[in-house]
Amino acid sequence: MNVYRHILIAVDFSPAAERLLRRGLDIATRYEARLSLLHVVEYLPFALDNELIMPAPLEIETQLFNSARARLAKLAELTGAPATAEQLVELGSTKVEILRIAEARGVDLIVIGSHGRHGWARVLGSTANAVMHGASCDVLAVRTSA
Amino acid sequence: MNVYRHILIAVDFSPAAERLLRRGLDIATRYEARLSLLHVVEYLPFALDNELIMPAPLEIETQLFNSARARLAKLAELTGAPATAEQLVELGSTKVEILRIAEARGVDLIVIGSHGRHGWARVLGSTANAVMHGASCDVLAVRTSA
Repeated sequence: MNVYRHILIAVDFSPAAERLLRRGLDIATRYEARLSLLHVVEYLPFALDNELIMPAPLEIETQLFNSARARLAKLAELTGAPATAEQLVELGSTKVEILRIAEARGVDLIVIGSHGRHGWARVLGSTANAVMHGASCDVLAVRTSA
Repeated sequence: MNVYRHILIAVDFSPAAERLLRRGLDIATRYEARLSLLHVVEYLPFALDNELIMPAPLEIETQLFNSARARLAKLAELTGAPATAEQLVELGSTKVEILRIAEARGVDLIVIGSHGRHGWARVLGSTANAVMHGASCDVLAVRTSA
């Protein structure tokens, strides 16, 4: 029996996303694994007292969702993801949503980008790091920058 | 061309080592990758002024090395590692040695155990975490405890 049966690829829309997705697809093919693609729209609550005129949050959320769904679908098509791959867009904290979906779906491998070793990521700790600590399954951190 | 051509598996001798090694062997087989197995003997310098009579450090080091080499060879045999797999024992900091060997050998995937989310590992950060931050290649963190 294959070790990895359900692989979750966490996709942002950075320049490295295509490479990450291709790498995840490659491993999913080799393991004949079920595949889920997830993009998380980070939620930024509004300050109600600011003076900028902005659309209602609900409307913005809908726009963000629709835009993210379209970009994810386009990326999946570009990289030749199988039609059976589930495409998910969630709203919230990237780390929390990745772990929540992984648990809920019984995922056994999370593929995530690891953004280099420089700058703030090194100080604050990356999402990949947080996911690795929280996950109850294996995590493949794909190097996405030097 | 295969994405992973040289895989480095970092092996400790914990109860989970066999599972970790089997997982690494599995992925190496699927990618037809060259394989290196590495165990690092953590170096503990001696306080020269302590009153305990101890064997000379060099002798201890030799014993540690020989013991580690034998255990690694046994583990490789037990898990059916190919005879072509390089077996390395190094002395020093686990994190530093893993990164050093990975760079020196042009490794493109490091497989390492990730020891759960509880206790001191969570506070101090695990070796897997440190390796992920320092590596210039991909890192597969295999969950070795709940």
